[in-house]
Amino acid sequence: MGETGKMMVRRPRTARGERTRRTLLDAAALEFGTLGFQGASISGITRRAGTALGSFYTYFESKDEIFRALVNDMSAQVRGTIGPKILAAPDRLTGELAGLTAFIEFVREHQELYRIVDEAEFVDQDSYRGHYRRTVDGYLTSLTEAAERGEVRSDISEVHAWAIVGMNVFLGLRYGVWSDEEAPADVAAQAFALLRDGLKPQSG
Amino acid sequence: MGETGKMMVRRPRTARGERTRRTLLDAAALEFGTLGFQGASISGITRRAGTALGSFYTYFESKDEIFRALVNDMSAQVRGTIGPKILAAPDRLTGELAGLTAFIEFVREHQELYRIVDEAEFVDQDSYRGHYRRTVDGYLTSLTEAAERGEVRSDISEVHAWAIVGMNVFLGLRYGVWSDEEAPADVAAQAFALLRDGLKPQSG
Repeated sequence: MGETGKMMVRRPRTARGERTRRTLLDAAALEFGTLGFQGASISGITRRAGTALGSFYTYFESKDEIFRALVNDMSAQVRGTIGPKILAAPDRLTGELAGLTAFIEFVREHQELYRIVDEAEFVDQDSYRGHYRRTVDGYLTSLTEAAERGEVRSDISEVHAWAIVGMNVFLGLRYGVWSDEEAPADVAAQAFALLRDGLKPQSG
Repeated sequence: MGETGKMMVRRPRTARGERTRRTLLDAAALEFGTLGFQGASISGITRRAGTALGSFYTYFESKDEIFRALVNDMSAQVRGTIGPKILAAPDRLTGELAGLTAFIEFVREHQELYRIVDEAEFVDQDSYRGHYRRTVDGYLTSLTEAAERGEVRSDISEVHAWAIVGMNVFLGLRYGVWSDEEAPADVAAQAFALLRDGLKPQSG
């Protein structure tokens, strides 16, 4: 899950192996997030992870491969953080408010997210597009189901899913990465009022 | 206009000079759009422009400077293309539909736009942020004025402007850069219905 078809996936078979892989990915997030793809190195990643260089090659073949795995991993982390918040809400519409609040909070705690995903546009287009396609697919599926339950407008389309994802990505950039002065819940509440009721003049 | 405060601006004083500068910027859009910032060269730009190397230095000091000027120029081109379409509409709300249609069409004709603006995040943060800040500022100003005329919801905020710009940027990426199968007017109409009326179940 969360891996592209092209990638040879070597998942660790033990819990300890899984932990080492996790440590390497977290170290890679810091390394790529701080130095960018060009500046990052495998030795820098293993130094941050406190693992031997040999360990790295047990899990990843190259800097390219761990970068791809990292984009997929961060993408899955975002969906794994936001998805449950949306599902826990009483309905899909208010779930959007909870999801956006959680997303802005996630971005503040993972400042490297944008730099890594955005650099993927240049380093590995497949990972870049894959991240957004999976995010939008998830949105479209849950919005379509919500439409069938009458919780959101009935004509939900892929265009709508892209529009909402774009809205959230830009709010995360502006209020998560560029500044942390505004309370995430306040930002999300303003955006949610627009998303729920629309831009037209509101009666009453 | 369209230049950052930090940049030394040497604008040509003659129409012919203005044309040469324009030719160099258009050539730079192709060069950076095709090869990226690292791969691009001043000689590649002058070759595409059909100008002497000396001409380049009449207008720009370095590859960095023409890149910054190009981001500002493309940013101004986007606003100069979309703004009038929004203003020509009978009201600000339907202007949004015209503006988004025009934006998707613009992106299809300027495939290099995203690559250049997105690379600015890594090459020159000031240009990157400046582009989005100016775009959002323009949106916020015109939406606030429209709110005073009663054409859109009365509580327009910066958050709303960021949300709408994000929506448009992602729709431009998906339906302008990644694919050109869908008619821009159809994509814009679907997004506009969501933006105007909101995600909530629609009555009637």
